[in-house]
Amino acid sequence: MKIIVINGPNINLLGTREPEIYGSLTLDDITKNLNAEAAKLNIELEFFQSNVEGEIVNAIQNAKNDCSGIVINPAAYTHTSVAIRDAIAAVGLPCVEIHISNIHNREEFRKNSLTAPVCIGQITGFGADSYKLGLIGLVNYIKAA
Amino acid sequence: MKIIVINGPNINLLGTREPEIYGSLTLDDITKNLNAEAAKLNIELEFFQSNVEGEIVNAIQNAKNDCSGIVINPAAYTHTSVAIRDAIAAVGLPCVEIHISNIHNREEFRKNSLTAPVCIGQITGFGADSYKLGLIGLVNYIKAA
Amino acid sequence: MKIIVINGPNINLLGTREPEIYGSLTLDDITKNLNAEAAKLNIELEFFQSNVEGEIVNAIQNAKNDCSGIVINPAAYTHTSVAIRDAIAAVGLPCVEIHISNIHNREEFRKNSLTAPVCIGQITGFGADSYKLGLIGLVNYIKAA
Amino acid sequence: MKIIVINGPNINLLGTREPEIYGSLTLDDITKNLNAEAAKLNIELEFFQSNVEGEIVNAIQNAKNDCSGIVINPAAYTHTSVAIRDAIAAVGLPCVEIHISNIHNREEFRKNSLTAPVCIGQITGFGADSYKLGLIGLVNYIKAA
Amino acid sequence: MKIIVINGPNINLLGTREPEIYGSLTLDDITKNLNAEAAKLNIELEFFQSNVEGEIVNAIQNAKNDCSGIVINPAAYTHTSVAIRDAIAAVGLPCVEIHISNIHNREEFRKNSLTAPVCIGQITGFGADSYKLGLIGLVNYIKAA
Amino acid sequence: MKIIVINGPNINLLGTREPEIYGSLTLDDITKNLNAEAAKLNIELEFFQSNVEGEIVNAIQNAKNDCSGIVINPAAYTHTSVAIRDAIAAVGLPCVEIHISNIHNREEFRKNSLTAPVCIGQITGFGADSYKLGLIGLVNYIKAA
Amino acid sequence: MKIIVINGPNINLLGTREPEIYGSLTLDDITKNLNAEAAKLNIELEFFQSNVEGEIVNAIQNAKNDCSGIVINPAAYTHTSVAIRDAIAAVGLPCVEIHISNIHNREEFRKNSLTAPVCIGQITGFGADSYKLGLIGLVNYIKAA
Amino acid sequence: MKIIVINGPNINLLGTREPEIYGSLTLDDITKNLNAEAAKLNIELEFFQSNVEGEIVNAIQNAKNDCSGIVINPAAYTHTSVAIRDAIAAVGLPCVEIHISNIHNREEFRKNSLTAPVCIGQITGFGADSYKLGLIGLVNYIKAA
Amino acid sequence: MKIIVINGPNINLLGTREPEIYGSLTLDDITKNLNAEAAKLNIELEFFQSNVEGEIVNAIQNAKNDCSGIVINPAAYTHTSVAIRDAIAAVGLPCVEIHISNIHNREEFRKNSLTAPVCIGQITGFGADSYKLGLIGLVNYIKAA
Amino acid sequence: MKIIVINGPNINLLGTREPEIYGSLTLDDITKNLNAEAAKLNIELEFFQSNVEGEIVNAIQNAKNDCSGIVINPAAYTHTSVAIRDAIAAVGLPCVEIHISNIHNREEFRKNSLTAPVCIGQITGFGADSYKLGLIGLVNYIKAA
Amino acid sequence: MKIIVINGPNINLLGTREPEIYGSLTLDDITKNLNAEAAKLNIELEFFQSNVEGEIVNAIQNAKNDCSGIVINPAAYTHTSVAIRDAIAAVGLPCVEIHISNIHNREEFRKNSLTAPVCIGQITGFGADSYKLGLIGLVNYIKAA
Amino acid sequence: MKIIVINGPNINLLGTREPEIYGSLTLDDITKNLNAEAAKLNIELEFFQSNVEGEIVNAIQNAKNDCSGIVINPAAYTHTSVAIRDAIAAVGLPCVEIHISNIHNREEFRKNSLTAPVCIGQITGFGADSYKLGLIGLVNYIKAA
Repeated sequence: MKIIVINGPNINLLGTREPEIYGSLTLDDITKNLNAEAAKLNIELEFFQSNVEGEIVNAIQNAKNDCSGIVINPAAYTHTSVAIRDAIAAVGLPCVEIHISNIHNREEFRKNSLTAPVCIGQITGFGADSYKLGLIGLVNYIKAA
Repeated sequence: MKIIVINGPNINLLGTREPEIYGSLTLDDITKNLNAEAAKLNIELEFFQSNVEGEIVNAIQNAKNDCSGIVINPAAYTHTSVAIRDAIAAVGLPCVEIHISNIHNREEFRKNSLTAPVCIGQITGFGADSYKLGLIGLVNYIKAA
Repeated sequence: MKIIVINGPNINLLGTREPEIYGSLTLDDITKNLNAEAAKLNIELEFFQSNVEGEIVNAIQNAKNDCSGIVINPAAYTHTSVAIRDAIAAVGLPCVEIHISNIHNREEFRKNSLTAPVCIGQITGFGADSYKLGLIGLVNYIKAA
Repeated sequence: MKIIVINGPNINLLGTREPEIYGSLTLDDITKNLNAEAAKLNIELEFFQSNVEGEIVNAIQNAKNDCSGIVINPAAYTHTSVAIRDAIAAVGLPCVEIHISNIHNREEFRKNSLTAPVCIGQITGFGADSYKLGLIGLVNYIKAA
Repeated sequence: MKIIVINGPNINLLGTREPEIYGSLTLDDITKNLNAEAAKLNIELEFFQSNVEGEIVNAIQNAKNDCSGIVINPAAYTHTSVAIRDAIAAVGLPCVEIHISNIHNREEFRKNSLTAPVCIGQITGFGADSYKLGLIGLVNYIKAA
Repeated sequence: MKIIVINGPNINLLGTREPEIYGSLTLDDITKNLNAEAAKLNIELEFFQSNVEGEIVNAIQNAKNDCSGIVINPAAYTHTSVAIRDAIAAVGLPCVEIHISNIHNREEFRKNSLTAPVCIGQITGFGADSYKLGLIGLVNYIKAA
Repeated sequence: MKIIVINGPNINLLGTREPEIYGSLTLDDITKNLNAEAAKLNIELEFFQSNVEGEIVNAIQNAKNDCSGIVINPAAYTHTSVAIRDAIAAVGLPCVEIHISNIHNREEFRKNSLTAPVCIGQITGFGADSYKLGLIGLVNYIKAA
Repeated sequence: MKIIVINGPNINLLGTREPEIYGSLTLDDITKNLNAEAAKLNIELEFFQSNVEGEIVNAIQNAKNDCSGIVINPAAYTHTSVAIRDAIAAVGLPCVEIHISNIHNREEFRKNSLTAPVCIGQITGFGADSYKLGLIGLVNYIKAA
Repeated sequence: MKIIVINGPNINLLGTREPEIYGSLTLDDITKNLNAEAAKLNIELEFFQSNVEGEIVNAIQNAKNDCSGIVINPAAYTHTSVAIRDAIAAVGLPCVEIHISNIHNREEFRKNSLTAPVCIGQITGFGADSYKLGLIGLVNYIKAA
Repeated sequence: MKIIVINGPNINLLGTREPEIYGSLTLDDITKNLNAEAAKLNIELEFFQSNVEGEIVNAIQNAKNDCSGIVINPAAYTHTSVAIRDAIAAVGLPCVEIHISNIHNREEFRKNSLTAPVCIGQITGFGADSYKLGLIGLVNYIKAA
Repeated sequence: MKIIVINGPNINLLGTREPEIYGSLTLDDITKNLNAEAAKLNIELEFFQSNVEGEIVNAIQNAKNDCSGIVINPAAYTHTSVAIRDAIAAVGLPCVEIHISNIHNREEFRKNSLTAPVCIGQITGFGADSYKLGLIGLVNYIKAA
Repeated sequence: MKIIVINGPNINLLGTREPEIYGSLTLDDITKNLNAEAAKLNIELEFFQSNVEGEIVNAIQNAKNDCSGIVINPAAYTHTSVAIRDAIAAVGLPCVEIHISNIHNREEFRKNSLTAPVCIGQITGFGADSYKLGLIGLVNYIKAA
């Protein structure tokens, strides 16, 4: 089983970007930790990050070919992208939306997610752990399906 | 007379994407049907599809060089893109907005179009036929101008 | 196949009413043009216009008896009539909503249509051509059903 | 380390209540599964369920005495209870909010959480797995603190 | 056939509480009148009143055991309780919501009912007669089902 | 005592119109059932149905001459007609508003009633029984006045 | 010079309808008083009243033939009729909107006028005098044009 | 009988200020015309203009001493001044609000009047004639009281 | 004269709960201080605290028997409880609402009070002194009545 | 210690202005009562009233020179004056906002206070007693600081 | 060329007022710096500050006599004064609105400017430099006109 | 010191695009003028323009390496891009937002800026001069820091 982990805009800056909100782990650190977790779960991971909304749409469409599910941190596009929402709905792969910070106690506009309604579920606020929890939840979901 | 037909995000998935909403014709099928219609109307067509908002802006800007009008299905960007709206207004070409599904009986956020106010008009809900009706309407409009 | 073309309030004034918005064709002109188009499509047309909301409800109900579909320009009632909406839903005939002007770049209250959600689709902004495009789209829809 | 798992109104009906939304596991099943997970994590669990808002406030206050954290499914009170929100903020224990269903694709009023802003984070949509993911996330959080 | 009549907060004060709004009958009077009506309908009634939201949730859950339907006057909780709404939906018994006063010509916040959407219907404004009409309607509904 | 039963737009289609919402009884069936109920109550009924808002205003005004009360199903005009509201308030006859379907779990715009605030009360959701319950409630109200 | 005075729904009940709001003059009294005023102004008056929105639209359209201006009390249709608004704009005659009561201190929904933006101006709150003031204002306006 | 005519901010610029909206008469012209009208009505006028909200409040309070009524053009303060509203309500003199332009077809924020609900009525859109109509209406009102 | 002091949810935690907002006095400290003040005012006090909304409704109802007035800090229920509002209105005792913190400079949802409209008045922001000021104000009010 | 008591627009009319809302005490009466209270508290009072928003801003700025705190009844400016809010924040003196009437059960727009968020707290509804309670609260606050 | 620099309420407190928001320069410092800049630009400056809205209206009206443009910091009146907006529009002088702080990241109500739509443009957030930038921009604008 | 000047979508069309709104200078003209200004300020400029949201995010991230600040005209993305906002906040460089037109007197949706709250300030409406003013302001800000 292969799962793609998609990261949206500015996630490439993790570790240096507002660490009081996003923590001090880099995207590389997270990648390593997730690969370790994937080994335990006996699955394969693919990673993709882009700051361009349309490239994320492309990545979701391409995942259809060889992935069983998607863990996505749409970051800023969570709140503005109907295109990513439509892509998730269109490919029909099970998808989990995660956020590093707790989007419920930040600016008002960060509470609304355009993508969550077409995902299995949403995990927010556990720092880098949100990825790991999302991965576990997704794999369980796929196995149970 | 040359018309460009611009398609927005996820339209490349037509035929497989939620066919109960979008029908079973592929983008290739639509292209063929439109070319047949164009032959009848004695005009030339150019086709462009992208999932990237900015590339659609580029396509609209470039259309200024050799096209007399635009048929556009902005898809998800209909509801979020001020940039595409500004591009249509900036180039000043007559433009028709079309939608495959009836955006008026889907989610509330799909009812609002940022781009329609700078177009000649909008056609929604006729499936792949929306393109054909849009093309006829646009050509008539240009000839009458 | 017989199609009824229903026109709402003030459409009887076409040609003299604010021609910069609605064009200079009269309702008679449109009737002639549509009959010509109907001949090409090998169908019969019936025409009805009223300024009274309830009479339009009656006309929709009566269409059930001998028509295969409806082209309707609800005009001002587009934005205020739940009764016309309910009538369209109740009779179950395929219906196309059309508007002469582009309702998306006029007053804010003209953007919302109570009737479009129970129609196949909506066509706006092509002047008198909106009727012709709507008729073609409706006939194609009925033939494909 | 002891964690209290608090369940809000109607969660005692799990398994029989709208199983297409909430799944077929009973609260007893979930209790057993969580105890198994707790054994792996080497922690102790306490369980509390009430349909009364104020009793949940009491339970949160009492947790201060002997618990290190809270996993809470406030159910219906998620959207209406300032009192539970205030209790969580008042006791200052780390708290994770979980939901069995994906609250983002149900009724509009279920999207807003009064309690999430005073929690570490929120997990929604993984069925009974939401509890397990919440527990893992909470324990990691406490250990890292 | 047994029906439970559930009354929400402050209904125990009927007769003394703002009689110009709620009339001069006490809850005891209403109970007697309803029992007389029940005798005519050949059914049994059970009565429950509480000021505590969660106890009303409990009563609804327990009704599942031995009642065929519910007549409920949620009073103040009509406008604030997602928990009672969820309980009604969860037990799946046919339920009728009634109000003594006409909630449509009082404060704005009394117009919205969280519980009515999960009931068969709602009866407002007939004073103590609202209970009797609700009971008749419910019994007819159950018999016709 | 004579009561007028007024029905608004599209109610003449009952029985054929969306029977999953409105049931399979025709307006004739309802008339017969209500006349039977009226006989029990020892009162006389008059029936009026129109799709035209203004004719319903006329009927309400005329009821002043020989009726003691009104049972009205304003149907679509419930949500849009200030004129019918003003007519009910102007004639000052006791009036009961009824709806066949439960307007609280349909489209959002059907929840608001312009007419209910000037009626004794409102009954929704009991199918054709809503008329009967409304009639009983109205007669009791008039006798008690 | 001929002016038409158009009255909307329920104005035929003046004198008996809620006299504490609308005063005790009947429509006949107002007609006489206005004719007296018209004699002073050396103009002719025509009167029209209907409870039917569409007939008011017809009356406005017909006024085009032989009237120089319109005094209109759209009553309840003030707040709901786009059709009357469109008719006033379409015929292009100078029009004055009047109200007997002060619509600014009644229900919230009476503050908004759909018709006033296409009139010269609006006069509210002077009882039957509103008609007289409106007539004087309109005649002055026409003479000055 | 003495009436005070109060003018709010920027009315002193009449004649030069945006004459396409406010006309070419100066405040002096209006004063002369109103004095002529007052002579016909056999009453005395006092005039007050200020750009300062609090001075207008003072003028309204002082009018209590020797005036029988107020004609006020609150201009910009119409939409923002609770203080002027409270002053009018506090002194209890009959007051008429007038506007030179038709505030209903300008910016959205000009439609709402904080002062109109405590006045007899409001006259808008008749240019300088609005003052004269307001004066006639006010004098009639006082004489009829 | 006996006054009941009712405290809502989480007030039992005073002194330890977010002391930067609520101060360091405990509920016991406040009780002692208020009893001292009561002695000066020559009145008797009764104290009640509960986290359960319905028990507060009960306490308000029972106060009718032997108390002359109510000082209430509804805490979180201020913003959500129609039931407490209805109870205060139903018993008809003079009631003063107090808040320890200044609810006007905290979260937006804390600005709105459902209970204040049925109280004499509201006191916010004076810390524990709010109780004392409320008590003095209430006693003065009762003595003056 | 010297405290300034600032009163906003129309407060100079107290005693004659709508006494059913504001009571029958004049501003002079209140001044005397407050001076008596000040004597007990061993402090000095200064009084200022103006109908002009900017003069109140000036008074607040000047208070910085010789006062320790402010009791303010901003009256109508409570709801509209950002300038007074900014002045209070700018001088940094402790300030108490009071209202004679209970602003929570009057017009909707009176519920919102622009000034309360920059004050210690707000007291509403105790009639002239609101000043005395505010003064006591302010003095206690200053002494405790 | 002469330019008037108008400052609104509380700007006279600059330097002492919340220096973390508004900086430590006084209004005198700013005046000196601007005069230096004016010398470079070879223009004359006039300065006006008032806390009274109406006096600012007066100053704008008077500027018409001898100034070529206006630099205005309306401060708190930015968000509440239609009167200042109307004055700017009425005199027709080119006007630049400036703010010392960045009004976009403060309270929500500070984002909206009533005056900016009638100015050339708006400059926010550069501290005292906002005045200088505004002056340069205004002078360039006038020279280019 | 090096500053990057970033331009968003459609800015490459300057000079030909709606010159009545955006002026007749091309982006090349602006570049030349800004370079001249930069020479005076003794700084270096880099220029970047893209129609793609994500490429602008990239450019902002890269600026971190060798630039001291950013002048950005986000154009259409001003109103829709949380991603650009997050990028600006993430890199932490001082940033100035500029607009050629006065966004406050165009369509309502152009008034709101998602990016301005994370910038030093915003300059709107000075045509091409907005860039120059922004550059001066930014350089002053950096030098003063």
